[in-house]
Amino acid sequence: MLDKIAEKFGHEFSYDEALIGHAAIEATGEALPEESLQKMKNSDAVLFGAVGHPKYDNDPSAKVRPEQGLLKMRKELGLYANLRPIKLFDELLDASSIKPEILKGADILFFRELTGDIYFGEKGRKNNGDTAFDNAEYSKYEVERIARKAFDAAMTRNKKVCSVDKANVLETSRLWREVVQQVAKEYPEVQVEHQFVDAVAMLLIKDPKRFDVVVTANLFGDILTDEASQIAGSMGMLASASIGDGTGVYEPIHGSAHDITGKGLANPMASVLSAALLLDISFGLKEESNAIISAVDAVLKAGFRTGDIADASTPKDKILGTDAIGEEILNRL
Amino acid sequence: MLDKIAEKFGHEFSYDEALIGHAAIEATGEALPEESLQKMKNSDAVLFGAVGHPKYDNDPSAKVRPEQGLLKMRKELGLYANLRPIKLFDELLDASSIKPEILKGADILFFRELTGDIYFGEKGRKNNGDTAFDNAEYSKYEVERIARKAFDAAMTRNKKVCSVDKANVLETSRLWREVVQQVAKEYPEVQVEHQFVDAVAMLLIKDPKRFDVVVTANLFGDILTDEASQIAGSMGMLASASIGDGTGVYEPIHGSAHDITGKGLANPMASVLSAALLLDISFGLKEESNAIISAVDAVLKAGFRTGDIADASTPKDKILGTDAIGEEILNRL
Ligand SMILES: CC(C)[C@H](C(=O)O)[C@@H](O)C(=O)O
Ligand SMILES: CC(C)[C@H](C(=O)O)[C@@H](O)C(=O)O
Repeated sequence: MLDKIAEKFGHEFSYDEALIGHAAIEATGEALPEESLQKMKNSDAVLFGAVGHPKYDNDPSAKVRPEQGLLKMRKELGLYANLRPIKLFDELLDASSIKPEILKGADILFFRELTGDIYFGEKGRKNNGDTAFDNAEYSKYEVERIARKAFDAAMTRNKKVCSVDKANVLETSRLWREVVQQVAKEYPEVQVEHQFVDAVAMLLIKDPKRFDVVVTANLFGDILTDEASQIAGSMGMLASASIGDGTGVYEPIHGSAHDITGKGLANPMASVLSAALLLDISFGLKEESNAIISAVDAVLKAGFRTGDIADASTPKDKILGTDAIGEEILNRL
Repeated sequence: MLDKIAEKFGHEFSYDEALIGHAAIEATGEALPEESLQKMKNSDAVLFGAVGHPKYDNDPSAKVRPEQGLLKMRKELGLYANLRPIKLFDELLDASSIKPEILKGADILFFRELTGDIYFGEKGRKNNGDTAFDNAEYSKYEVERIARKAFDAAMTRNKKVCSVDKANVLETSRLWREVVQQVAKEYPEVQVEHQFVDAVAMLLIKDPKRFDVVVTANLFGDILTDEASQIAGSMGMLASASIGDGTGVYEPIHGSAHDITGKGLANPMASVLSAALLLDISFGLKEESNAIISAVDAVLKAGFRTGDIADASTPKDKILGTDAIGEEILNRL
């Protein structure tokens, strides 16, 4: 797709490849080898695959795990803001388990904090291994910078921010709410609401249209954005951008889905749309980005589907595999 | 309802009342006064209202808050297992934002751990108040006893347990998974799966029928059960039981909903069904419990609805207020 964009719009993209996760562990013993990290730092943007491997999931005691590579990358590249736009292509209105009339018009932009919270605090065992602990932490500075990103984005959209926390229980959430209340003062035009995470988990399904920009902590963002993927019909449709002060990383929100490896069933659109986000956010190539989105849209309009977004009414011959639907997108570029 | 049950089945119930949350703070300055706690301990079961008040939500620095009463009660009464049955009354199939064909037949029993995790670990501020922290902790013993409750329940149902964690990131989750794997060995007939919390947030909406018993930690359970309330059409339908070694507590899963206080809009069914759970679990009065459930069902079959469970096809005169629908239930007892 990127080569085609380069050709069409007269750019030149140069590529480098680097290992992370399970593949890196197999090759080097490390989940994120120094060489990979350097390559990323030397690049203008990173297009990311997906990490995870069932081998580690069923072995809670494994010392090296694929996810460590992902988390280290986020930390080392300072990727504190994870943007997850949730928008339904009109043609997929019936693909979701949620009723079309509830979904129609929903358009949410999530800002998930990505380098703090319980993901990066001290963790371990005590009492002879009998007790495990994970520490969650947030500093005012960490909350402030992600909040500001969310409010800035809201100013270019419907000027609504929903900040999600669990301030009735957590001290980190109380700090979160204080800081968001402070930042909000700088954006008098933006309408702000504070909601508890449990309520939002419910409201996202009950009434997704009430949301515009949602900003939340790392763990809550992890859970809520996966849930919200159902608003877009399937996880296979959702791209994300992780940005900070340096190189940005673009990745589908889905995992590595080893249960379907090699079967040609994976929906490549989340990856393709991640490349579109990359062009837009890291390179400022809005027109090129839109060209990719339009190509995906055209494929959907032509009735083609991967299995995850097909519904009962999709004719069998319109259900394509990973490569074939990729070709259809390419042809429309 | 309970008086009517007593009359019909020849029992005698004696009642006591106690303050907790905002009402207790106003009256005594404490969220759970010692007197209330003693009354609970001296009772065979507690039928609980709901806590929370907007006054505290917008003041992250408040020192005494309603939720502290709830959490202290859970801890002091040793209520480590929170049961949240998610079952849709047939008549409400169209009330949900999720498609009826996705919902039909869904029947999930959640076991949420209720006295551990990040709710009860050390929390506070450091670096001159600049950083907030919350510590999550689980001991093997804590995981074992809730896991055992879940497996015991699965044996009386469809013999499937889904254990939910975030073992790819959290040490508490890795301990959780280890212990659940151990306990599972004692139940060879039960089919176990381990899922990450983000995946379950998505699967609950995509395919709720795949779940039978779900067991998870305190925070994940808080989020997932509120989300799952949409499977039952509305939070206003969901009852819960909190049990441990002493007095059991029965409460609707919804909050105190101050935005509709005094308007007669609240759906009382979650409270009514909590009384049914109380009769069943704490008193072993199965027939009496079923009588209440049948009365609720009969009211729904007769077409009556509160606003939260009405849909576009509900005739205006069938939409009743809190008291009126309560009367309808009572009349059918
Ligand atoms: C793989 C995992 C560690 C990761 C996360 O929890 O952040 C993933 O779920 C995500 O959302 O990118
Ligand atoms: C009120 C709040 C502290 C409580 C919780 O988080 O446990 C509530 O959401 C619940 O689920 O009972």
